[in-house]
Amino acid sequence: MAPSAITAATTPPHGIKTAALTASAVYHQIEAQSGLRPLDASKLIFTPTTTPMSVPAKGDAEAYISSQCSDHMITAVWKRETGWESPELKPYGNLSLAPTASVLHYATECFEGMKVYRGYDKKLRLFRPEANCARMLISATRIALPAFEPSELEKLILALLEVDGVKWLPKTGDFLYLRPTMIGSAPGLGVATPREATLFVIMTFMPSLNKEGGLRLLASQNGVRAWPGGFGFAKVGANYGPSLMATGEARARGYDQVLWLLNGQVTEAGASNFFIVWKTKAGNMQLVTAPLGNKIILDGITRRSIIQLAKERLSDELELVERDFTMDDIVEAVNEGRIVEAFAAGTAYFVAPISAINYNDQDLDMPMYEGDSGKYTAILKTWLMNIMYGKENHPWGVVVKEKQ
Amino acid sequence: MAPSAITAATTPPHGIKTAALTASAVYHQIEAQSGLRPLDASKLIFTPTTTPMSVPAKGDAEAYISSQCSDHMITAVWKRETGWESPELKPYGNLSLAPTASVLHYATECFEGMKVYRGYDKKLRLFRPEANCARMLISATRIALPAFEPSELEKLILALLEVDGVKWLPKTGDFLYLRPTMIGSAPGLGVATPREATLFVIMTFMPSLNKEGGLRLLASQNGVRAWPGGFGFAKVGANYGPSLMATGEARARGYDQVLWLLNGQVTEAGASNFFIVWKTKAGNMQLVTAPLGNKIILDGITRRSIIQLAKERLSDELELVERDFTMDDIVEAVNEGRIVEAFAAGTAYFVAPISAINYNDQDLDMPMYEGDSGKYTAILKTWLMNIMYGKENHPWGVVVKEKQ
Repeated sequence: MAPSAITAATTPPHGIKTAALTASAVYHQIEAQSGLRPLDASKLIFTPTTTPMSVPAKGDAEAYISSQCSDHMITAVWKRETGWESPELKPYGNLSLAPTASVLHYATECFEGMKVYRGYDKKLRLFRPEANCARMLISATRIALPAFEPSELEKLILALLEVDGVKWLPKTGDFLYLRPTMIGSAPGLGVATPREATLFVIMTFMPSLNKEGGLRLLASQNGVRAWPGGFGFAKVGANYGPSLMATGEARARGYDQVLWLLNGQVTEAGASNFFIVWKTKAGNMQLVTAPLGNKIILDGITRRSIIQLAKERLSDELELVERDFTMDDIVEAVNEGRIVEAFAAGTAYFVAPISAINYNDQDLDMPMYEGDSGKYTAILKTWLMNIMYGKENHPWGVVVKEKQ
Repeated sequence: MAPSAITAATTPPHGIKTAALTASAVYHQIEAQSGLRPLDASKLIFTPTTTPMSVPAKGDAEAYISSQCSDHMITAVWKRETGWESPELKPYGNLSLAPTASVLHYATECFEGMKVYRGYDKKLRLFRPEANCARMLISATRIALPAFEPSELEKLILALLEVDGVKWLPKTGDFLYLRPTMIGSAPGLGVATPREATLFVIMTFMPSLNKEGGLRLLASQNGVRAWPGGFGFAKVGANYGPSLMATGEARARGYDQVLWLLNGQVTEAGASNFFIVWKTKAGNMQLVTAPLGNKIILDGITRRSIIQLAKERLSDELELVERDFTMDDIVEAVNEGRIVEAFAAGTAYFVAPISAINYNDQDLDMPMYEGDSGKYTAILKTWLMNIMYGKENHPWGVVVKEKQ
């Protein structure tokens, strides 16, 4: 394969607008690699651990803080000249990276966050894993990392669960966190598309991030998370590190997360999507969230699921609206007593009630009419949990085969 | 030290605006760590290599592509509870990082780029190293990494050069590239300020990026590099990975770099600052570059030096202007024959003549009246080279002590 063709594998075609990364850009990304070896889960090489770790006790703080992982991990290496090497399922361990590796300098990195649930029926389930794997391809494309067939990534995730699920997630009602990640691993300081990438999947402990009394948000006054023409829609590292300073400021002031604004418009709550239920001036009940159109917010799987459930099951009482809205809209609704409830939605925080938003140094209370939650927040959360833990049989809950 | 005080070490104080990272935020960052061990170059532990590498031949392509490093590297580890451990000068080698390390997921990383020059007088020189070290502290603060005294980093850089300078950079007129880097190295997937960081300094080969015929730029139509309230001013990884897709598109279309615009305003050329010389409608000669005020462009050391030299030595012929200007301003000046020359300025590309800018699918020619360069481009480049290589004795050229 000619070098120029290989280069094209990680550059979008002419006519694709840089910011408007679309299905066709991703398609091109895959197409251009057609002469290279694809990611192929059927070639998985399994090396079982010879030094199994002990599973930390429930509530072990250090296991949460340091994100203790399970016995094994998936890795797969891609090279520009040849494509994907055979993926491996092997003992969990450190990565050895050249100090010149692209990921350490230029943030050539993207990831996914998924949970795996031990159901009421003892079965292990993923929640819409194909959606995470498809989004990972979009993120990889945006950050100049190589393409892959999303269903192959899903198979690799299932292979890890098949080996580590029984031992590491035995108890009904518990979950673990899966982190598929891709990094630019080639040595070389040139500011250029990485010549080598490493995909890995690890499974870790994560605390339940439920916060009693609801989340308190601080609306960002100056800091901006994402902008039109940027990369806010992609799950790339570059959206996270730069947010930590403002989050630290919010925490120092007694708030849990930043409510990110862009020109006054409400975008995301911390690393979650933001939803608000209000009555319009005409008295209609609406569940409102920011739209995906300008590509500044993440296309959350939880967000998407809530929208779909609300449309399917709540449309008699509640109109689902994806629209731009501002803090001034919220302030007006607060002043007119029209706010019903608000919540954040994402994999890590799940569906988290919001109790207050600080804007212009004033705390705006968000009602929690059910005591610890809003009514719709609670309903939507329960519906999702029922699917995740197998109380409701639903195509979003994908049962994982396990070694017995 | 109480955990709250430690947390404060990496969060800006109340009243400091998130976006407007100022000297006081950096001061606070240092101050809040006053109970912790500071970075201390005098504690450097030196472990000489026992397997010295051979120096690649001049022009060895692989040495450039993979950024071959010298025999040694500097490393220093910071921990939230205790501060900086003793820095090490030790054999160059891979880093061992947990797959959960913050830098691999959240782009908690920043760096500097500096060159070291073998002068006409056989002496080794750095160019304004104190400016790079001071900027590294600003970048670290912005990306929630720990503070340090910049002069200690400078001493560590000098220690590396003292050991590796003679062997790796023997020849008059050559240079090597230094890359001080800091990464969030603690295991832990929580989206939070890293509990551990690793500082390292490596020295690598870098090709001269001079391009015959001048650089051809493609003005970005949709992709936006940085935004007010973002982090464009900081040398953090998050500014680079997201730029690769647009750069790849530009290269596929036959251009060398993207000319980044923000609402039509000209900001940066690739990863360099952009300068243009034009005549005003009134006939005045101006050297124009974008201002630092809104914190979207990098405060380049080369940029700063060019501004100072132009003010000191060219003010009779040329007015130095830092102002917002747009592609429309450039198009108008082209149409009226008022463009004199344009160039990009930065450590990697140094002072690089620009021959064309594509805007709205039209190539705008930038004159190069000296054949391979504009007149002022050549003058400024020569002045800087004279300082870097010791033809002119100047405080910006810092002589490095070497082992004989």
